[in-house]
Amino acid sequence: MLNPVKVGILGLGTVGGGTAHVLQHNALEIARRAGRGIVVTHACTRSQNKTHPYNADEIVLTNELSDIVNHPDIDIVVELFGGTTVARDATLQAIANGKHVVTANKALIATHGNEIFAAAQEKGVMVGFEAAVGGGIPIIKAIREGLAANKINSVAGIINGTSNFILSEMRDKGSDFAEVLAEAQRLGYAEKDPTFDIEGVDAAHKLTIIASLAFGIPLQFKSVYREGITNISPEDLQYAEELGYRIKHLGITKRTDQGIELRVHPTLLPNKRLLANVEGVMNAVLVESDALGQSLYYGAGAGALPTSSAIIADLVDVTRALTTDSGNRVPHLAFQANALSDLPIVPIEEIKAPFYLRLSALDKLGLLADVTHILSDNHISIEAIIQKKPISGTEQVSIVILTHQVVEKQINKAIQAIEKLDGITGQVTRIRLEML
Amino acid sequence: MLNPVKVGILGLGTVGGGTAHVLQHNALEIARRAGRGIVVTHACTRSQNKTHPYNADEIVLTNELSDIVNHPDIDIVVELFGGTTVARDATLQAIANGKHVVTANKALIATHGNEIFAAAQEKGVMVGFEAAVGGGIPIIKAIREGLAANKINSVAGIINGTSNFILSEMRDKGSDFAEVLAEAQRLGYAEKDPTFDIEGVDAAHKLTIIASLAFGIPLQFKSVYREGITNISPEDLQYAEELGYRIKHLGITKRTDQGIELRVHPTLLPNKRLLANVEGVMNAVLVESDALGQSLYYGAGAGALPTSSAIIADLVDVTRALTTDSGNRVPHLAFQANALSDLPIVPIEEIKAPFYLRLSALDKLGLLADVTHILSDNHISIEAIIQKKPISGTEQVSIVILTHQVVEKQINKAIQAIEKLDGITGQVTRIRLEML
Repeated sequence: MLNPVKVGILGLGTVGGGTAHVLQHNALEIARRAGRGIVVTHACTRSQNKTHPYNADEIVLTNELSDIVNHPDIDIVVELFGGTTVARDATLQAIANGKHVVTANKALIATHGNEIFAAAQEKGVMVGFEAAVGGGIPIIKAIREGLAANKINSVAGIINGTSNFILSEMRDKGSDFAEVLAEAQRLGYAEKDPTFDIEGVDAAHKLTIIASLAFGIPLQFKSVYREGITNISPEDLQYAEELGYRIKHLGITKRTDQGIELRVHPTLLPNKRLLANVEGVMNAVLVESDALGQSLYYGAGAGALPTSSAIIADLVDVTRALTTDSGNRVPHLAFQANALSDLPIVPIEEIKAPFYLRLSALDKLGLLADVTHILSDNHISIEAIIQKKPISGTEQVSIVILTHQVVEKQINKAIQAIEKLDGITGQVTRIRLEML
Repeated sequence: MLNPVKVGILGLGTVGGGTAHVLQHNALEIARRAGRGIVVTHACTRSQNKTHPYNADEIVLTNELSDIVNHPDIDIVVELFGGTTVARDATLQAIANGKHVVTANKALIATHGNEIFAAAQEKGVMVGFEAAVGGGIPIIKAIREGLAANKINSVAGIINGTSNFILSEMRDKGSDFAEVLAEAQRLGYAEKDPTFDIEGVDAAHKLTIIASLAFGIPLQFKSVYREGITNISPEDLQYAEELGYRIKHLGITKRTDQGIELRVHPTLLPNKRLLANVEGVMNAVLVESDALGQSLYYGAGAGALPTSSAIIADLVDVTRALTTDSGNRVPHLAFQANALSDLPIVPIEEIKAPFYLRLSALDKLGLLADVTHILSDNHISIEAIIQKKPISGTEQVSIVILTHQVVEKQINKAIQAIEKLDGITGQVTRIRLEML
């Protein structure tokens, strides 16, 4: 058997510690597959946890990342610092030193991936990032290799476990957003500052990567349209169920004649669909492609061990390809670097979807007629409409409307007009619907 | 760009024709990924269809398979004859000639895979068989590469679309088996001779392959315990629903302290589980592994285009690995050939599961007490019991029992005793239950 491959880890927190642990604990199982050992020899950590799952005796610890990225014996650097400044510098330095890199850092890849892959290509090294999307689900491998025969038409996924947990709990318990967020924080499913998860930034990072792999376009995080889940109320979840739908926070990217749609937002899905039945912190990605049709990939989207599963899969792939000439390796973004296309991104105003609208209104004669007039004046046809009784003690009613397919700018125009009606109180809630 | 890789197809039927078509139709998309073209230059077919989706002008047709397997210009042979005699000879001959082989033939791999992989290993060529399990779902890639970090504990899958279609239709329409089978045959979902599908032979072939990849054991088709779906009645499907379960025909393989479980049979699953909600001809495979936990892979398990998706994914992989030294390639059975284990297979009588029992009985005082006595004498505890009213015009009642976990030989003993009771008519229906 060949000598073991030597790995240096940047960041020995939960994920780094989990990765070191799994590499040690499943060493035999992994070597039986890879044909040689994969060993963590060095790790950089600023503050080592007192209790950790790995055997620290076998690892040289340092608090200087240059000790890792410049170490002549290290073959592969695993970047787990997070963030996009130190992580970027360390990654580029490791590449410049001819080391392969494996990372779980979606922000880094989504925002600096083009630069990083160009540097790696030039240096003939590999950068693995399976752990950056869908945690341990081998979704990057599936899109990049498993679907290589296919023209991919769309990808839609539940790619942020925190948001999915919050929406699942709000629906099951009828609790409101703030209450469930606090519970998620207690359980460790949400960060102290939950912005990245609940505002869809994390999902947008992942969708950026997915779109690039699916369509062979450069990474373009700034073009992602983004809505979080903070405006979803328990009533919306309940009304959606009554209409036969479920609300999920999705990343959606589609190939259309106008270009590529790239959007992250809450979405109504028919409640029998598999994607609608992915609950709690689990992730799932649904791909629609011309030869295979629909395929779906489901699993844990976060957590130390699931993430380490993806990191180590990358380590095994890199190990196997060490002696492969770089032209024959799987391209970082699925398509050969010189074969990327420059497809335009469709502005959100031009995207077509059916919409769910929820209006708060005074229980007033003729108001419903005014609303439906505005919709028909804007050529928006109605699939269903329900008026919910006043909440006791108030004069307020909820009017819930499902529209047929409509261009987004058209629904926005209608909503502006509806919000000006006498008797409509507050903003109209508006959620896109997909028949995925 | 490098010269295109040359492919010869054995068998230009539905799948072969579909493969040639997709390679031509998506040629640009595939070359953008693979870095070079993949071209069907030759094909062997005994009777070419008059209407076919591919452009025949670009393909040299022959009716002698030796023209393909011995042709000096062909790099990769795609074996789509089916069966295990001609297909085996052709595959071994192609390997002997130093050609790589890609096949969709599950029977061939399950029964002659050990021999074929040994020959390939010796000759330094690759044999791809992604299309042999789960049609177009990249499940072999997921297990072999995506989960390389994991110790896999179990795999369970809906891996025969025909059986799943029949059970889905029987439940939805309340129709009986023979009726739905005839419909499946009309729709082209079942063969004229449906034995392989409805008796679980096809699923057993696939499970043989899955178990080998998951646990690093040699292929051993003969060790698979096998039950088909012919004994499932519409009543069973309905009673299962009433109890909160759904009946699916599953292939299940598990690692236990006693060895490897390897079994194909109808199974009750809790009806909220994703696997329970895979309907019609679709396939899905659920993997439980130590680092990732549960992951699930869903898609089309058959059909010309989905199957071609998997075949072409293999062609791209083989193309990329052409220049890789053979020690660094992904091993055929996930684990290096010299690192396979010889774990024992657990006999079906030793397997533990909760059971669903359906008894046909005369509506007779004291009978239920006799039945529960027999169960308790055999240390079998009861989770639920329902007695269904006599079917009008008969004295017959159905007694449906869900047991707790019990060793199979123990339930068999109890069933023998129950069937001897005065008032029990006919055989007891017995279906295993899994909390997957």
